[in-house]
Formats: sequence, structure tokens, C-alpha cells
Amino acid sequence: MKVVLTLCAAWVALVLNGASGEASWIWYPGDYALWRGNDLQARRIEYGGGYPVFWPTYAPHPLVDFRKDVDLKAPETVELATEGVCRIMGLGLRSPMPGVVSNRFVLPAGRYTLVARVYSQGRPPALYMNGPTVRTDSSWKADWRMSAAWQPGMVSPPAETRAQFDSPVTRPASVTLAVRHAEPVSQKRILGGHVFADFGRETFGFLRLKGVKGKGRIRIVYGESEPEAMCEDFNGPDQWEYVEAEPGDEQRLKVSRGWRYVHVIPEDGVSVEGVAMDEELCPLSRVGAFRCSDERLNRIWEVSARTLELTTREIYIEGAKRDRWTWSGDARQSYLMGYYLFGESGLARDTLFYQRGGDPVVMHVNQIMDYTFYWFLSVREYYLYTGDRVFLEQAYDRMVSLMDFAIGRLDANGRPHDRPGDWMFIDWAPETLHNTGGVTSFEQMLLVEALEALAYVSDTIGRGNAAYRERAAKLRAEIVPLFWSDEKGALMHLLKDDGTLDAQLTRYPNMFGLASGYFNDGQRESVLKNVIFNDAVMKIQTPYMRFYELEALCRLGLRERVLDEVRAYWGGMLDEGATSFWELYNPDEKGAAKYAMYGRPFGKSLCHAWGASPIYLFGRYVLGVEPTKPGYAEYVVAPDLGGLDWVEGTVPTPHGPITVSVKGGVATATGPANCAGTLRWNGKSVRIPATK
Amino acid sequence: MKVVLTLCAAWVALVLNGASGEASWIWYPGDYALWRGNDLQARRIEYGGGYPVFWPTYAPHPLVDFRKDVDLKAPETVELATEGVCRIMGLGLRSPMPGVVSNRFVLPAGRYTLVARVYSQGRPPALYMNGPTVRTDSSWKADWRMSAAWQPGMVSPPAETRAQFDSPVTRPASVTLAVRHAEPVSQKRILGGHVFADFGRETFGFLRLKGVKGKGRIRIVYGESEPEAMCEDFNGPDQWEYVEAEPGDEQRLKVSRGWRYVHVIPEDGVSVEGVAMDEELCPLSRVGAFRCSDERLNRIWEVSARTLELTTREIYIEGAKRDRWTWSGDARQSYLMGYYLFGESGLARDTLFYQRGGDPVVMHVNQIMDYTFYWFLSVREYYLYTGDRVFLEQAYDRMVSLMDFAIGRLDANGRPHDRPGDWMFIDWAPETLHNTGGVTSFEQMLLVEALEALAYVSDTIGRGNAAYRERAAKLRAEIVPLFWSDEKGALMHLLKDDGTLDAQLTRYPNMFGLASGYFNDGQRESVLKNVIFNDAVMKIQTPYMRFYELEALCRLGLRERVLDEVRAYWGGMLDEGATSFWELYNPDEKGAAKYAMYGRPFGKSLCHAWGASPIYLFGRYVLGVEPTKPGYAEYVVAPDLGGLDWVEGTVPTPHGPITVSVKGGVATATGPANCAGTLRWNGKSVRIPATK
Repeated sequence: MKVVLTLCAAWVALVLNGASGEASWIWYPGDYALWRGNDLQARRIEYGGGYPVFWPTYAPHPLVDFRKDVDLKAPETVELATEGVCRIMGLGLRSPMPGVVSNRFVLPAGRYTLVARVYSQGRPPALYMNGPTVRTDSSWKADWRMSAAWQPGMVSPPAETRAQFDSPVTRPASVTLAVRHAEPVSQKRILGGHVFADFGRETFGFLRLKGVKGKGRIRIVYGESEPEAMCEDFNGPDQWEYVEAEPGDEQRLKVSRGWRYVHVIPEDGVSVEGVAMDEELCPLSRVGAFRCSDERLNRIWEVSARTLELTTREIYIEGAKRDRWTWSGDARQSYLMGYYLFGESGLARDTLFYQRGGDPVVMHVNQIMDYTFYWFLSVREYYLYTGDRVFLEQAYDRMVSLMDFAIGRLDANGRPHDRPGDWMFIDWAPETLHNTGGVTSFEQMLLVEALEALAYVSDTIGRGNAAYRERAAKLRAEIVPLFWSDEKGALMHLLKDDGTLDAQLTRYPNMFGLASGYFNDGQRESVLKNVIFNDAVMKIQTPYMRFYELEALCRLGLRERVLDEVRAYWGGMLDEGATSFWELYNPDEKGAAKYAMYGRPFGKSLCHAWGASPIYLFGRYVLGVEPTKPGYAEYVVAPDLGGLDWVEGTVPTPHGPITVSVKGGVATATGPANCAGTLRWNGKSVRIPATK
Repeated sequence: MKVVLTLCAAWVALVLNGASGEASWIWYPGDYALWRGNDLQARRIEYGGGYPVFWPTYAPHPLVDFRKDVDLKAPETVELATEGVCRIMGLGLRSPMPGVVSNRFVLPAGRYTLVARVYSQGRPPALYMNGPTVRTDSSWKADWRMSAAWQPGMVSPPAETRAQFDSPVTRPASVTLAVRHAEPVSQKRILGGHVFADFGRETFGFLRLKGVKGKGRIRIVYGESEPEAMCEDFNGPDQWEYVEAEPGDEQRLKVSRGWRYVHVIPEDGVSVEGVAMDEELCPLSRVGAFRCSDERLNRIWEVSARTLELTTREIYIEGAKRDRWTWSGDARQSYLMGYYLFGESGLARDTLFYQRGGDPVVMHVNQIMDYTFYWFLSVREYYLYTGDRVFLEQAYDRMVSLMDFAIGRLDANGRPHDRPGDWMFIDWAPETLHNTGGVTSFEQMLLVEALEALAYVSDTIGRGNAAYRERAAKLRAEIVPLFWSDEKGALMHLLKDDGTLDAQLTRYPNMFGLASGYFNDGQRESVLKNVIFNDAVMKIQTPYMRFYELEALCRLGLRERVLDEVRAYWGGMLDEGATSFWELYNPDEKGAAKYAMYGRPFGKSLCHAWGASPIYLFGRYVLGVEPTKPGYAEYVVAPDLGGLDWVEGTVPTPHGPITVSVKGGVATATGPANCAGTLRWNGKSVRIPATK
């Protein structure tokens, strides 16, 4: 596909890292993700003020070498474009002048290492070269270490690329999200000169003020609920800002924000006639689909998809309105949902790069120990769903340095103990979790999986380090002996520093333990009875941890119960008028309490990525589609209707969609071209042939 | 001094880090140095093409916390300005809106830690706050590690500042070097439409093309010599570039360059009437002065001063024309000269920060092992001349990580052996130096001094690490036993891997050994006779190493011989018509050979910072001015006329100038206010009183 966009280049669907045969821009892996992610996160405001993140922020590398071994039988004219000042080396080559955007350039015949050294400060250095045989793609190496990268034992990662960034006149940094004009479903004048508008559902974009007159400030209050946007208290809604009036027909605000309702409050001497917006579109296209015999579940899937689309920006973010930040634990769920809705990988890759940041590592990802561990799991899952081995090579050194940081903070027994400055999050729970003053079984389980994921990646790209696997095995074997309570018949939450088990019993380690096979049959029965189906054990209020709770039940084959829970919990939000799913839902909270969180009257996000998990749960466990080899090279389709009459749907893969239909007790499935899978239904397995 | 410059803010003389009582902008230490240094270095061109550096390049930190403990008896209104998005924290403070440049802000009364978190990508984050008691200065801490910086054992460095960056409307990033219009001393039309101009002496700035007509390209050839600028060969002069004609009265080129001669070659369809320039001024003012009874030496001092001024840009650079890069070994000499000419420190500090770069360290400074070690020596000398203890606190962690890198590359005996990828430079010598395949005495001596410098800094700021001192002592004690040859009566250059001494005898370790007190009386006599005064030992051709050779002779009291060498060597360049001093001078090279170097016909730099060492040698060893405690808290003036009839001069110090006069056998000296020194003359010492 050739897309040449000059003035307002739009970000079309992103695809895999790869050497596709077409030239496309290349850059140091992760640099554009950092650059875009840094700016995106910094657009957050709160109570009318700027609100940058609170974790260490890394810049792209200003100087990068791009290298490629070439063997040219004849001289070759290439088209060249760079972001930044470029020096080209190899067989006496001359470099282009600084400022040259696009140029013809002759490469001499011969066998040599072609090096393009590109410098750019402020925007990441990038290179485009397109000739008969020499073309920039991920077969090039990229390194910021200059000649140090050529030393024995040093491995340079493959350059990062996007197949669609294939025009020399469109530099990667000029690409932005596409927008679409939208009008509110209703707007009215209130309180004299105010404008109050309802856009009908949660949205995200650039507000447009119509008919602005006068000179002075205009206060904009954004709300996901009507009371939020109506509230003029400076300490009320999280999201409000002042803008200077720019008289004219239409004033488009400079920063995109998330809202359903907008309240425009012109100061004295200023007036505004009405509003519209440029909706900033999700950069990815919906491929996944789900329909079944229960319209409530269909609506839940639809609102989940909208929720994920609104939180899918330059990278995945947590929520549309408040944070707009990216959190590794939340993002892991976005990735998994994204694999079932969009079936792309570039955005997951960007988000993984952003989350990881750079070196030296001085803090857990998002400051949260569990979030460091989730990052490793996400890398492994990314590879499983996309088959993008190049990414593993690009990310490997950063996996190692992050794990070395985490290992450096373990306690004397090699267990994940809290340390000053580390946040042991786990979940927003109704009671305080006992996460400190010892080792939690939950963190230790995550560490085991993180180590296993790193060992797996290391093996996959031939950089094996057995120490990670051995450490994982030792920690895994400790879990049940250390944390099991015979009295409670379950894993306990915390092993205190005095060597005794804390009395708090939570669902978290037990549902992870169920999903990850820690228990024998007796223990499993005990955990189900004493924890999972025991209403006396603290309930989970976040969709975040409901994701794992329901996944654990799915893995135990309890689909019918899972669908009932989805109907009640997500359906409960629909009954409250949700047009996107929430950060936290407690059916007992009514009225104003519904919107409050973090001690703030409207602190709760009503469009939160982690609210969208039905996309994943339905695709993975109802349609039953799962890759069993990286990138769906092998897959299974094992539908489980959980009591539904019929179900049909589509799951994207890197090679094309898988469609599934179960109607009248008959299951059918078609898979992508050139891939074959297995359909499991009614105790039988049949091969799904490759389509033409 | 209050300098408010809005549209074209000029960079006035920079001063010490400090808490002066006035508010000024603050930023993370070194970030502006990196930002400016990166861009400056990347402006290099060669043969019409871009030419970025070849060492790892580090970006400023996009997100920085600035912290200050305050104890306000009453609420306080401060003026606030930021480069970037800012969040302010402390006692429920609200943050300003993104995009706010200058604002009033009320700090509540109370005792709390005031934190301003500033995000900016592309330009380093910076903060300005000015109130009755709360003002940004170096008493604030700066950290990019966010809350990780608050953990036990973490030390945040003081913020960096410049007293003159004191206006909220002038952000540090908007400050540029001042310019002054200048005309060539002659210009003529040649070869039809070409313009050839002589600016009379080496200069540096933005070329202006007058009376440009037509559409097309203009080729500009820059030369430090007439043959260089006349040469139209694309492989001839290093420095030429194409610019697009912009018809009009005057077209100012976008990038400043160094030259004496300019050759303007319009392509067909374009014409140019003549040239002028905006000379880009040295940001520092000349305070040092030197006059004596020998006019040749006076001229040498003057041309040295011009040479240093031309290589003093946003940071110190190597040469005006070709590299415009900064090299740590060269820069050490620029610093020392600068202390005697400008008496400032901000530019040395910036250059030290630029040279050090960031973390992780993956390569020696400039890829050169000696240049890593010189960097440590330069830090110690910076402190000696400026007394800027704050810088030591700012740089300390980066000293440690660089030394740890260097130590990680030592051989099994802990000695500085060459490794793949490391450049063992030492000098541009007429014969190949035997620097590899073993350990050189020269590198080991430098390592000893680097370790001693780090240990000294560590002690000075109370972060003592005895291991560095012990390592230095062990290596120091090895030098003579390992490298002394009884046969040659001198230190040998290389101890080979087979344990034997290589046969090459060079001046380098012997002159460093003399200067650093490695020898007993007998050894000293032997070295002088067998090496220093032995014409059969390879002569030094660079002013770079002549600096150390002559310094060694000065320390042995041989001033008369030193002045003779200066008259011959630097005077020889004057006789060749030099208006600035050269990278390398060999009196035997005549005609075209004079300009050649690196296998290129005009490869030699004729304005090279390391050519300016008479500034240092005259100030330090003829006027005899030397700080004996950091920042000239104590100093000595010990003139030595070396056969001159009279001498007088001025040496800047952080507290004001020291003036020295020796006439008619009488020495007088005045020192800065509030400091007292010692005048040594004719075997007597007298106290120099503080002036009022």
C-alpha cells in the first residue's frame, strides 16, 4: 500500500516490523514510541494545571548509526531522505548536505558495510533509502553506541520500521492521528452565556468553539457525566482548562481531550455561540467481531470495543478523560484485547517500548513492582499473538537491564519484598491490601512468570541465559509451601517478615494460582470453595482484576458462570447509562458516589481501557480462538457457548481473520490463508484448512 | 547585573554556579550543555556533506523534578516561568496551565518541600521562580529519577543555573551568541562571476551574500589559506557547501562557519555582487593581559588569545574551520588557557558536561582512553581555578560511572591496556606511536592522575571512596619499576604483552614523569640528557604536546629555554603569516605541504585551540600566577622573566583580577578584594594584601 500524505499525514493502521521488500523509514527501536508517548502523557491536565507523569522519562537517542552489509554488482541510485543531519559512509561515499530532505544518491558497486549516521535533536533521527536493491527496512541494524556497537560481544538491534511509512516526503514525526468532524447530539445555552453540550457518548478529540467574540478567557469544563460537566467548582471536575478567546467563526482547541459533556463558560466580555469537535480517531481498524443470541452481551461487546478504541491513541492509554497515561498492568490487558479487536501489533510494540523507557533503570515501570513484571508477560504475549521475532531482538537488552534492576531489589531470599520507593499496587480494593512488610504470594507469582517470559525470549532469539529459568523454577516451587494455609485452605496474601502468614485472605493469589496451575486437585477444590465462591472473601471491584478472575473461571471451564457475571457487572454499568466502561464499578454506589474516586468527587474514569475485557474474554473463551504457536502459525478454535443458543464472530490474526460460527449445535470455522488450525467442538478435533 | 533581552537574546559572560540571592533559571545539571553541544557539533560539514560526531550522544532529560525545602511565615507571591509543562506540588498547590510562560503564583505559608516537575521534549526543561524569599538558584535540587531520587542513599545534585539568565521572559534556550557586522579587507571578482574575499584574519560567523540575483545554487568554498579557498576541486578544501540563492539585497547563511578567505561560486543563472559577514562573537570577555619587553612574544600572546576566542563558542571547540568538535584532551588545554584569559567558568563547566555525556557509558570520551583520563584532571583543575564546589556535586555521579567504565576495561593487572574499539591517541607524531599490544607508561600515568582527581573530588564533597586512592597509589608505584630502562636511562613507551619493553623511546612519558615528580635526582638528570635535550628522540610537532613539554621545562625552572622555544615554534607560524595558531607545525614543511594533514590537501586546521598555549604558559609560569587553594582563596605570584627585561600582566580570578608587574628588577602584584596571596621574587616571599 502506498500512502503519500503531505500536509496532514494521517496515521493509518500500523503493521509488523519487517523486511517487506518495500522501503520504509527506519529509526532506532522504540525512539518514536518514546517521543510520541512522552508528549501524549504530558498532555494530561488536572484542575486547570499541567500534570506530567511521575516516572523517569527517557528521550530518544539524538545520534544513531544505521548499518547494512551490501554487495552491489553495479552502482545503484537510491532515493534518500533523512530526519536530521546525515553522514553516509562506505567505499568513499560522500554525505548529503544538512537540511536535504529527499535526494538522489549513488551507491558504488562492491561489497561493503553501508552506514548512515543520522543526528537529530528534538525529533528522533530517521532514515529512508530506496533503490533497486538497497532499501531501508528491518534488515538494517540501528545503534546509538557508535563504534562501541562494533566491538566483540555487542549486538545491535534491528532498526524499527512501519511498512506504511514509505514515502520519502512524509517524515515519521509529521504523522498524526486522523480526525473527523462531529456535532453534539444536543447543546443549549444555560446560565446566561454558558454553552452546555452533550455529544451523546464518550468521545475524544479537539473541541471547536463556534462564533467566539470578544477578548478574554473561556473556561472549559469537561465531563463524562452530566453532573461533572455542570459543576463549576474549581475543585470539582478533574478536567477543566482556560483558553484565550480567538474571535472568529471557529476556534479549535490545541489539545485533544476526552469527554461526553462539555460546559463552556466565557468570562466577562467574551461570548461563544456553540460547540462542535474534531474527533481524534483510533489509529487502528476494528477487525474482530462478536455476535450471539444474547443482545445484552452483544451490547457489552460493542461498548467494550468503543472503550478500547477511545483509549487507543498514539499508544495505548489508561483512560480517555483523566490520566491519558499508560500503565503497564492496564496496558497488558489493552494488548490482549487489541489482539482480538484490531489484530495489529505496531501499537502494542510502541506501548511496550514507551513503558520500558531507557537505561539506566532507576524505578519499576510506573513505579509499581507488579507493573514491571506484567511488562515481561506482555512481551511474551506480544510475540505469541504477532510472531514479531524482530521485536524480541530489539527489546532484549532492555528486558535484561530491567530484570537486573528488579533482581537487584529482591530480598536476601531472592523474593520480591517491598522497598522504599516501590509501589506494591495489585488492585484498588475495598479494603487496604496487606502488600508490605513482607513478601506477597501475588508478586512472587508474577515474578516467576516474568522470569519465565525472559528465559523464553532469550531462548527464542538464541541468547539463552539459564540463570533466569533456574531462578524462576526455585521461586515457583516455593509458592505453595510458603503461602498455603491449611486452616484457610487457600494461599495467603502476605508472608510477613517475622516468618508468619498475615491473616488477610484475598482472591488475587488464588485466582492467579488457579490460572497458572499451582494447585493439585484437592487444593483447587479448596480454593474454589474457600475463596472464589466464598462471598465472605473481599469482592473485586475493578474490571482490571475481574479480567483475571473471570479468566481463571474460564480456564476451569465455568463459562456459564462467567457470562452471568459479565451480564451482571458490565450490564450493571450499561444500566447506569454507560457508553464506555468504567475504572471501577460497585453496584452499591448510587448517585454522586458513582463518580467519586481517589477522594475526588469526579475522580473516577468512566472510560477505562481495563473496562473492555469482554472483548478478550469473548474472543478467547467463548469463540475459543487461541494461537498455539507464535503469530498464529498454529492455532485452535475451541468455542464454549456457556449456555448461549448461538454465537458467531471474527478474530484477527497477522495472516488474516479467523471466523467462527456455532449455530444449531454445529461449529464451523475458517482460518487465514496459508495457516491451518484445529477446531475443537463436542469432544472432537477437526483440522481447519488454509483458505485460498 | 540585569540583562533583559527579548527578541535576540545575547549570551553575555557566564558566571559561576551559585545561590547569589537573585532568581535565575534552573535546569538539570548539564542538560543545556548537552543540548547546545550536540547541535554545535552537528553543524560540522566536510566536502559539502553533513558530518555528525562519532561518539555516543546523549539527550537532555525530558522530565525533571526541581525541589526546595521552604519554610514560609506568610503566603508569598512568586513570578513563575517554565520551559515546558509544569506541575507544582507542596501543601495542596495547584499547577499552572501548560503553555504559561510567566505568571503570578501564590505559595502557601508553612514548612514543606516545594516541587516543580517540568516536562519538555526538544528543549531542556527549565524553571524560573522569583518571590520575596523563594527564588530559583543552585540551592534547589534537580533530579530526573523522580521519586527514586528520594530513596535512602540517593543524592540529588544541585540544579544548574547562570546568574545572568535572570529574566522570566527570556528562556535559556532562546539565548544565542551575539554577532557583529564585519566586512572583508578585500574582495574581488574572479573567473567571471566568482567573488573572492579576504577577511584579513581568521574569523568565524555567518556569511552574508550581497546582491544575490537569479535562481539556483551557489557554492561557497571556505579557506584558512588563499590556496585552499581558491581550490575548486570537490576533494580539495574540506569546507564547502551549496546554498540555494535567495535573491535580494543580502542573504545571510543559516550556519556559522570558520574561515579567513571565502570563494563564492554562483552556478549558471545566479549572480552575487559581494560578501560581508556577521561575526559570531566569543561569549566571554578578555580579562587576562600580557606585555613584556619582547614584541615577538607579545604578538604570540595576542594571536594565541585570538585563537582561543575563535574556538570559544557555545562550548569550547577544537578548531574554527574543520572539526568544530570538542575533544577532551584539547579541551583540557582550552580550560587552562581560559582561566588565564577569560577567568570564567560557566563555559568550562558546560564543556565538561558535554564531554561527559550521560549514562550508560559505552565508550571512552571521544572514544580515546587518554581523553577519558584528561576529563577527570580537568574537573579537578576546574575546581582549583573556580572554587565551584557545586559543580563537583553536580558531576560526581557521572565521574563515578565514567571511572567504573574505565576500570571495567583495565587488564588483569588493573592496567590500562588497549581493547578493541578504544583509541589510544596520545599525539599526532611523525612516527607511528607504539600504543597497542601492551600497556603504555603514558596512559598509566594519566590513569593514576584521573584516579587521584576522583578521590580528591570525592573527599571534597564528603563522598569518600578510598578504593580509588588505593588503586592510584598501587599504579603510581609501578611506573618506574615497570617502565624504566637502565640502558636508555629513561621511561620506555610500551610494556608489551610478553612482558618486555618495546624499543620505542618517546618524550611523552618522560616529560609527564618530570612534571609529576616520578623521578629521583639521578633519574631526572638522565631523562633530561637522554630524552628532553636529545635531538635524536622524535620531536613533538603539535602545540598540543608542546604544551606539556614546555610545562615540564617550566617546572624545572628552565624558563629561558622555554621562551626560546616559544619564539621559534609559535614565532615560526607567525613568520608563515598565521593570524591564529595551528593544529600542527613542522618548520620543514613548505608550500602546499604546510596545509596538508590526514592525507587531505587542506586537512590541517590553522586555528586550533591547542595552538594557544602561550596564554597559559605566560600567565602561569612567566607572570607566575597560580591558585593554591580552590577558587584562588589562596594564591601565589612567582614571576620568572626567563631573560626578559620586563613583564606585566593580568590574570583573572573569580574574585577579581591579579595584576603583576616586574620592571627594573622590582616585582609588584595586586590581588582581588578580600583575598590575600603571596608574592615570591628574588628568593623572598611577601604577602599580597587584599584590596578594598
